Amino acid sequence: MTDATSTDQAGTSLQGVTAAAGFRAAGVTAGLKASGKPDVALVVNDGPEAAAAAVFTSNRAQAHPVVWSRQVVGDGVARAVVLNSGGANCFTGPFGFQTTHMTAEAVGDALGIGAGDVVVCSTGLIGVGDQTFRDGVLRGVDLAVAALDTEGGPAAATAIMTTDTKPKQSVATEDGWTVGGMAKGAGMLAPGLATMLVVITTDAVQTAEQLDQALRAATRVTFDRVDSDGCMSTNDTVVLLSSGASGVTPEVGDFQEALTAVCADLARQLQQDAEGASHDITITVTGAVSEDDAVTVGRSVARNNLFKAAVFGNDPNWGRVLAAIGTTDAEFDPYAVDVSMNGVRVCHAGAPDRPSDEVDLTPRDTQVLIELGVGTHAATILTNDLTHDYVHENSAYSS
Amino acid sequence: MTDATSTDQAGTSLQGVTAAAGFRAAGVTAGLKASGKPDVALVVNDGPEAAAAAVFTSNRAQAHPVVWSRQVVGDGVARAVVLNSGGANCFTGPFGFQTTHMTAEAVGDALGIGAGDVVVCSTGLIGVGDQTFRDGVLRGVDLAVAALDTEGGPAAATAIMTTDTKPKQSVATEDGWTVGGMAKGAGMLAPGLATMLVVITTDAVQTAEQLDQALRAATRVTFDRVDSDGCMSTNDTVVLLSSGASGVTPEVGDFQEALTAVCADLARQLQQDAEGASHDITITVTGAVSEDDAVTVGRSVARNNLFKAAVFGNDPNWGRVLAAIGTTDAEFDPYAVDVSMNGVRVCHAGAPDRPSDEVDLTPRDTQVLIELGVGTHAATILTNDLTHDYVHENSAYSS
Repeated sequence: MTDATSTDQAGTSLQGVTAAAGFRAAGVTAGLKASGKPDVALVVNDGPEAAAAAVFTSNRAQAHPVVWSRQVVGDGVARAVVLNSGGANCFTGPFGFQTTHMTAEAVGDALGIGAGDVVVCSTGLIGVGDQTFRDGVLRGVDLAVAALDTEGGPAAATAIMTTDTKPKQSVATEDGWTVGGMAKGAGMLAPGLATMLVVITTDAVQTAEQLDQALRAATRVTFDRVDSDGCMSTNDTVVLLSSGASGVTPEVGDFQEALTAVCADLARQLQQDAEGASHDITITVTGAVSEDDAVTVGRSVARNNLFKAAVFGNDPNWGRVLAAIGTTDAEFDPYAVDVSMNGVRVCHAGAPDRPSDEVDLTPRDTQVLIELGVGTHAATILTNDLTHDYVHENSAYSS
Repeated sequence: MTDATSTDQAGTSLQGVTAAAGFRAAGVTAGLKASGKPDVALVVNDGPEAAAAAVFTSNRAQAHPVVWSRQVVGDGVARAVVLNSGGANCFTGPFGFQTTHMTAEAVGDALGIGAGDVVVCSTGLIGVGDQTFRDGVLRGVDLAVAALDTEGGPAAATAIMTTDTKPKQSVATEDGWTVGGMAKGAGMLAPGLATMLVVITTDAVQTAEQLDQALRAATRVTFDRVDSDGCMSTNDTVVLLSSGASGVTPEVGDFQEALTAVCADLARQLQQDAEGASHDITITVTGAVSEDDAVTVGRSVARNNLFKAAVFGNDPNWGRVLAAIGTTDAEFDPYAVDVSMNGVRVCHAGAPDRPSDEVDLTPRDTQVLIELGVGTHAATILTNDLTHDYVHENSAYSS
């Protein structure tokens, strides 16, 4: 099992997207954020190779940068990723799409590459994308190109933050090759990706097809299983770039393992920094007739506001777990279900078991085990509680 | 259009389930609630007829009283409804089902009718249904039988309250016949019925088949479209009883209209008393290719925590409306959608329109209009905002 090292373990010296050879990055302040914090990031693949893959939000309302970037990676080649916080450039009309296009062209001109090889990512408020926004992003591109550095990963990770309280990076160092990445996302974490921008780089030699296959396999069991608040974003993007600079072609299984470890580490960091949360809830569903059923059950519980509010109040309200399971189409028998919270089985065969007051829900890390008892499949969903702070942050977000 | 008179309009003198001739009711205090408030209600149909219909939660995890009552109304006959608050008797094992059965038998014995004609409803915490609960309910049956009165409607409406802040009754008085009802439900209001117990009575002459058809048509456009928090209960029951005591057989359309008016009035009262809410949000979706699509879109917005938190903060965040629409499978074009809030069109053709600061979201009554622009069908969903008080009430509910 590959271990990924994350920002918290390594301190700020950890190199995320610049851990692998062949990459430069930068994070700069272009004035998009009223706070005056860094807001434009750039990641450049100096090669020798330029293979790329990406997955995007499954929301049918997609931001301009998503529409653009899907085209960019369609041919399996990308040489740079430019990202901005301070505005999602979503539902901003033809002007907004033009801004995305102009951003890619500005990066391409400055680096001597084609605009069609530049992935663009934006995050912030929907509906923000006017002339001021455009001017800011283009100013940011100039500043970022000038600041590109082989140790620019941490600066880039900081510039993509929105309501994140800390930058999120992760690195897996293997035998002669490396996978590293950065992520942002603190609210609207939901299925089919969170409001999440993720850039992962590697110096392993990989074809675009190999990258695509590995990325889909990794996101399916990591980012796709973080469901903080059931809300799906319009801008989610996970990009994977390979420079091939190590000259090493790893075994398929080894590359998959390293990539999944980095994705899992970043996904956990997203959960732990979810807006306003006071509990990180790991919902493990076992005994399902299929993995899909296990995911469905876990997600339904993860989205149940009553259950999430109960966890906030340190109340092991297993009735709300069963009520949530009952709303799914998963195969289950209400009178075969066991529910445990932090190791105490409070419900056995659909009836009360251990007294609820034996459950200690005060730790932030919260484990919920749902044993359906009808099959052999399992899945784990990461979510958070529903708190006063969540309501506050999301009622005040745009002001 | 029939107008229904609700509790607020008429004061506490309004007769809900005892407005129609042929019914007696009672609400008594049996000690199930720690608060010492009334907790057992009984509604009796003295005939001459005893036609009945009911709809139940679509949650697959169903409480014992739901399983029992479904059987009771299966033959189209019911002569009494006994309801308790202070415990849902759900997931309480074989002992819990036996309690439901014993409750029906106690009512049947006291009234000289068969237990198989007694509908049982319970509401309160899941997992509550021990010997103390059983003793309390049976004590409540004795007290309620003794207290039965042709003006007992208001007392019954009070005894079924849980976190409701006020009793909910509604009456439609027609030419020689009447439809009246009572409801409880303040949280877990969701599709396929809210956590909701509703009893509706009429002295119109109606067959069980007519009642069933009319009740399904009425709930489809009323109770089924209240979606306060996306959480579906295990105990929801709506029962309709006909005594035929008026001797009048109304036109089918007239009966439907009166019944729907009472259901709509009670549904609105449920929304207005939803746990912790500070806004009653009416989401109207027009221009859909089908009514189902309109309902799907409205429901998706009604369940979006980010949108609901924004309304709590008086923030007309239309981006979250579009993001919610994008998660559905409804037919729509993001660049054809208009969104208005309290009469101000903030989004036109998927781009910003009037400035958000023109929208006044301070009134409790909040109107959201979503014009999809792809068809001719419409639907309205009633929901609430996501507030600090919602989180508080639902984190403290079981303690």
